Amino acid sequence: MPQSRITCHAVPTRKATNITRVEHRISTEQREARNRHRGGVLWFTGLSGAGKSTLAFGLEEVLFNRGYQVYVLDGDNVRHGLCADLDFSHGGRTENIRRAGEVAALFARAGIICISAFVSPYRADRQIARGAAPERFHEVYVKADVATCEARDPKGLYQKARAGEIRDFTGVSSPYEPPDAAEVVVDTEKQTPKESVAVLLAYVEDKFS
Amino acid sequence: MPQSRITCHAVPTRKATNITRVEHRISTEQREARNRHRGGVLWFTGLSGAGKSTLAFGLEEVLFNRGYQVYVLDGDNVRHGLCADLDFSHGGRTENIRRAGEVAALFARAGIICISAFVSPYRADRQIARGAAPERFHEVYVKADVATCEARDPKGLYQKARAGEIRDFTGVSSPYEPPDAAEVVVDTEKQTPKESVAVLLAYVEDKFS
Repeated sequence: MPQSRITCHAVPTRKATNITRVEHRISTEQREARNRHRGGVLWFTGLSGAGKSTLAFGLEEVLFNRGYQVYVLDGDNVRHGLCADLDFSHGGRTENIRRAGEVAALFARAGIICISAFVSPYRADRQIARGAAPERFHEVYVKADVATCEARDPKGLYQKARAGEIRDFTGVSSPYEPPDAAEVVVDTEKQTPKESVAVLLAYVEDKFS
Repeated sequence: MPQSRITCHAVPTRKATNITRVEHRISTEQREARNRHRGGVLWFTGLSGAGKSTLAFGLEEVLFNRGYQVYVLDGDNVRHGLCADLDFSHGGRTENIRRAGEVAALFARAGIICISAFVSPYRADRQIARGAAPERFHEVYVKADVATCEARDPKGLYQKARAGEIRDFTGVSSPYEPPDAAEVVVDTEKQTPKESVAVLLAYVEDKFS
């Protein structure tokens, strides 16, 4: 029997019936009180090479060292595990972001700050991720244009994409839809990683306290 | 363990190429040191009505009140979100457990005790879940036979299954393969929920300290 593989373009209709949501006896608020900060999702979106992973892991380190419960959900790592069955087609990307949004929401409900670093090029997909944790979702636009990212090309992926060795590469052969109203924008063309992390730390200290 | 089933329902071949695992700058060990206990997965398996959710949420409450970072991943809840696209066919169950295993492993790596409560009727599927967090996985068999669970029938599901209103219902029209070598067995035919939680608490205090 083939591995069930899902490539839908919207929130799936729930297939399972006869299931009942069970409430935790410990609320998110109790967890937040214990941790002395709010739980939530910091959703980093931007092109490959814009600095999402660098900033995500940098911010995680800074927050951890200040006593926060924090965990990075990184696109590349998730594609080795939870989303190993998905490709980079539009449908595959949508399902990847849907699942990541659900997992990030679980961490948020557990009282943790989940920093999610995914290209997540489609606005509609990011809305679905937001919908999983609507009151605790903070979109962070890690902003750098294609020319800048291509000049950096830390993994040599733009070169491969231009050579036609990678299909569906965001910014080259697949679109990127920038956020309309991200809660935070870090401009990595102008800021050093250290400066961007400082902006994000200030945001967290303001919004998650 | 039937080899044929592993072949049929294996971990998916990774579809995404050109992805590189990124390491966290904060290790699981640092998180565990901060939390003053180990992270890991307590994987509850057993029939519907055996008491998985009751014990999972009961244990969560007790552990939280003792200062543990703990979160329940409950089968019914996950089927409203992360796995809303899956049905109860063999393939749907396998994928459900694969994803749940990956998410539980993320929580474990974040230094948290993730109590996962899923019927997870197939041994091979539970092995896949174990494989996602091999050093931090603890299988808990919540043991009660079909007759006992059917007599309890807290959600009226056995009655519906016997009436043919639910297809693929574990214990009635779909198999349950009990664990060969669970790390813990709680016998809910003989123990009260309070007694079972006490057994589990003692196990956690022993293994996660």
